Amino acid sequence: MTAPAITVFGVPIEGEFAKGDKVADRLFAACEDAGLKLQDDDVVVVTHKIVSKSEGRVARMPAGDWEARDALIAREGATFLRRNGSIAITKTIHGFVCASAGIDASNVEPGTVTLLPLDPDRSARSIRSRLKRLGQVDVAVIICDTFGRAWRNGQTNVAIGVAGMLPTVNYRDTTDSFGTLLKVTNIAVADELAGTAEMVMGKADGVPVAVVRGAPIRRGRGSAAELVRPAHEDLFL
Amino acid sequence: MTAPAITVFGVPIEGEFAKGDKVADRLFAACEDAGLKLQDDDVVVVTHKIVSKSEGRVARMPAGDWEARDALIAREGATFLRRNGSIAITKTIHGFVCASAGIDASNVEPGTVTLLPLDPDRSARSIRSRLKRLGQVDVAVIICDTFGRAWRNGQTNVAIGVAGMLPTVNYRDTTDSFGTLLKVTNIAVADELAGTAEMVMGKADGVPVAVVRGAPIRRGRGSAAELVRPAHEDLFL
Repeated sequence: MTAPAITVFGVPIEGEFAKGDKVADRLFAACEDAGLKLQDDDVVVVTHKIVSKSEGRVARMPAGDWEARDALIAREGATFLRRNGSIAITKTIHGFVCASAGIDASNVEPGTVTLLPLDPDRSARSIRSRLKRLGQVDVAVIICDTFGRAWRNGQTNVAIGVAGMLPTVNYRDTTDSFGTLLKVTNIAVADELAGTAEMVMGKADGVPVAVVRGAPIRRGRGSAAELVRPAHEDLFL
Repeated sequence: MTAPAITVFGVPIEGEFAKGDKVADRLFAACEDAGLKLQDDDVVVVTHKIVSKSEGRVARMPAGDWEARDALIAREGATFLRRNGSIAITKTIHGFVCASAGIDASNVEPGTVTLLPLDPDRSARSIRSRLKRLGQVDVAVIICDTFGRAWRNGQTNVAIGVAGMLPTVNYRDTTDSFGTLLKVTNIAVADELAGTAEMVMGKADGVPVAVVRGAPIRRGRGSAAELVRPAHEDLFL
């Protein structure tokens, strides 16, 4: 039997997260409880939800109160790009284009919502360095959220924070099997990893962390900020 | 040691594909050669490149000849949405929004390009039923391509053909851990699977097939056509 190239582990964490909780510490303990020993070059994908809660990025918002929601979007410093009924597509202070500035009423106390971490790249770096200390292990960390996209139905998980890896793998300098220089291929592997992780996280199952082993990441000082296409290069803003 | 929830296998296939080649037969033989026995509920992800070649969807186009490229895009029946330098963002006859109607000069004889399969959902169904016959196994099949997207740098693999599974997993009817009804979550799991597969395929490595085991797919008669957002519902066309 051939060995799999990539393996994906779900890491359940019991109990809620609240302001001041140490995500990396609980995550590391949960890995140990699950019998999963983190290894160098593992990618640890963390749903932003537990990061936001730990960072106190929670606000009151009555369910379905779109006026309150819009006020909160504005308070978050996001700009409105499009509206359609109750849907508001926005650009966040991080540059992410997503619904409602990432404000999310799921998996949080009714009447409250989570906001995106203020600096998810920094949050990812912080989790990564704490894991290094706890486990003497050199992993990459991705913080993810579920975003819709243009043109295609359905949402996918994408990377909103990245640490310890480059967010894209550039095939620009390589040649294909015919020797043709691959000019424009720059794979957003951090987003593919976030999508991979989503499949073991589900939406309501208490699995806020996934560990992906064997992915072809390039190590280095990367960030999710690099995944934001500059407005002047975007043809669809 | 905990068992991984998802495992991903790369399936190398030696030699080129040409018109008339039977993708499912070569794929099945390659799995056997790799010691990989397909199982029910596996997702077999196939790069469109070998499907296009097998279906004779190849055309002559001198490298970098943008006039010839534009003529070919028009011949493919695609419409031009945006232009920026040599980049042409188009909508294909299938409804996919992508660069150059999916015309691709990589991994093909210099001076030629591959075109998208005319009906990738049908191609996926055909591979799936042939695999069922060859291996007495009930897998899902995804045909993938590498597309750019709005707002975010880098490309990801997405599903352009689907058979034997629903392309999205709908959390609409479920509640989260607080009992809140999840209203808008409809995960494009077929795209997440395509992205997962990309990581073992690479771009130039002779691995045109990946097998994903353990993914939370819902079986049924699905198609990639369902992933195309109708134009009247799209805020960014």
